[in-house]
Amino acid sequence: MSYIVGLDIGGTKCAACLGSSEGDVFDRREIETDPGEQPESVLGRLCEHAKSILRDRNVPIQSLKGLGVSCGGPLDSATGMILSPPNLPLWVEVPAGDILRREFPDIKVALENDANATALAEWKFGAGRGTVNMLYLTMGTGIGCGMILDGRLYHGTNDLAGEAGHQTILLNGPVCKCGKKGCLEALSSGPAIARLAQDSLHYGRGKQLVAKAGGKPANITAKHVVECAKEGDAFSIRILEEAGFYMGVGLSNLIQILNPEKIVLGTIAVHAGDLILNPIRNTLKEYTWARSLYVCEVVPAALGDRAQDLAAIALI
Amino acid sequence: MSYIVGLDIGGTKCAACLGSSEGDVFDRREIETDPGEQPESVLGRLCEHAKSILRDRNVPIQSLKGLGVSCGGPLDSATGMILSPPNLPLWVEVPAGDILRREFPDIKVALENDANATALAEWKFGAGRGTVNMLYLTMGTGIGCGMILDGRLYHGTNDLAGEAGHQTILLNGPVCKCGKKGCLEALSSGPAIARLAQDSLHYGRGKQLVAKAGGKPANITAKHVVECAKEGDAFSIRILEEAGFYMGVGLSNLIQILNPEKIVLGTIAVHAGDLILNPIRNTLKEYTWARSLYVCEVVPAALGDRAQDLAAIALI
Repeated sequence: MSYIVGLDIGGTKCAACLGSSEGDVFDRREIETDPGEQPESVLGRLCEHAKSILRDRNVPIQSLKGLGVSCGGPLDSATGMILSPPNLPLWVEVPAGDILRREFPDIKVALENDANATALAEWKFGAGRGTVNMLYLTMGTGIGCGMILDGRLYHGTNDLAGEAGHQTILLNGPVCKCGKKGCLEALSSGPAIARLAQDSLHYGRGKQLVAKAGGKPANITAKHVVECAKEGDAFSIRILEEAGFYMGVGLSNLIQILNPEKIVLGTIAVHAGDLILNPIRNTLKEYTWARSLYVCEVVPAALGDRAQDLAAIALI
Repeated sequence: MSYIVGLDIGGTKCAACLGSSEGDVFDRREIETDPGEQPESVLGRLCEHAKSILRDRNVPIQSLKGLGVSCGGPLDSATGMILSPPNLPLWVEVPAGDILRREFPDIKVALENDANATALAEWKFGAGRGTVNMLYLTMGTGIGCGMILDGRLYHGTNDLAGEAGHQTILLNGPVCKCGKKGCLEALSSGPAIARLAQDSLHYGRGKQLVAKAGGKPANITAKHVVECAKEGDAFSIRILEEAGFYMGVGLSNLIQILNPEKIVLGTIAVHAGDLILNPIRNTLKEYTWARSLYVCEVVPAALGDRAQDLAAIALI
């Protein structure tokens, strides 16, 4: 067994953890950050926590196999540079790799965007174990995608592979946060599900959902939609069916192009389960070649709460 | 320099050639086939021609580096089995690899579908030289795609990767030959361009194009459209613009998902040049992220008439 330090860098929370190449997480410390804190300060605090875990557990720094960092993109995985993640406004061209190598001399440091890192974690320790060609997609605030092709993480030319959430599904569809129209993310992400529900409330429909949101349609979230759907609310079930249909078209395109053996879906797919997986699977039957679909399983992510820690650890 | 034998198997014509690992083609023999000829007979005749070339050139079989076979899919590249190409009705589960290994004992035999083989040829000898992540797409009777990812041909799980022509571009769009609706191939292939022209002839439009087709709208082909567009016919130019728009959307999806550094386009893109490449490039600007597009060049294929021979040769 080899010890690995993982750092997870997010917009409001960050964490340092100690884990192993077998997918254990032995210890973790979380810190809150505010958007005004300088990146160097956040990284410094994370390093302190990591070192304090190592001291507590009597693990010498030199015995570490490496240090993995999972962070929002865009970033340059080759040089370890964080470029300008939308949820980290002050993190513009931060040489995280260099900073961490100074704190952990002679230790291998690897940096990846969170979709790639989570894909690796699900592949090594979770729902994608044993596969050679696996795609992982989040269905959360955004739709990110990490791709294991021929048994390796595929980065693309400048670390922008896997933007499958920004393939065009509906020409002249709703405007996406990225500025394009009809992206998969504008049709099947959490905010897209909330917007779809809010836009469908005419003639007194969706009463149960509005009540769940405290009576305020503008407060409806994807979480409310999933909760109501689980309670049997036909309106919310139909919203998930629509989001699942578009997700199914997007996954069909990925299957036609990449012929994977497994697609692992995170976040909303885990919370909603068959309420969204069934519409996705029904759409796949219609929009994918049988011969390609036959070899491809679509499953929810398996790592749950451990996903973010294991994402950083899986990088080593 | 190493000698390589290439076999190109098509619906009406097949060829055997002798080439080199440097991309030379020294000699070739073509044979006509009719759909009623048994696969074993066709392969036997091709082997005879290959052996006769080797005798004429004083190249001993044992000195060959290998034998490459380019054929329509679906096929199993790992076992060398041709499964059931639509343009070769009698070729159902033909163990081409085994048959050829009997004819050329101890020689390496490699079989690939024609899109993959041509992608390799353009990558090794043509417009894609020097790249690490390259996509090649035909724009002919169909839209096939071969993908070089991280410097290797990517096959997918059961040799069905690269069916980018059957991604959905237009929900509820025209029915594709594959049975799905709104596939890229149903919007931008040669037959799609012909259909689009035929469907747009109302109110006396497209007179020049109809004349080119001998006065019969039903005889219009993509070749006629390209010829008229080159002569300045505004109607035909607009048809190519529409096909180019959909092709641009399809390529944008590929760039968002795979972040390639080069896309090489064959067949119609070569014949029509900027008449279709400009609409494609304009669409890319609208439907692709600037950061991904910045690193990706879209160019016509470079191998011309030599593409089919070199496709087979590039497999070794």
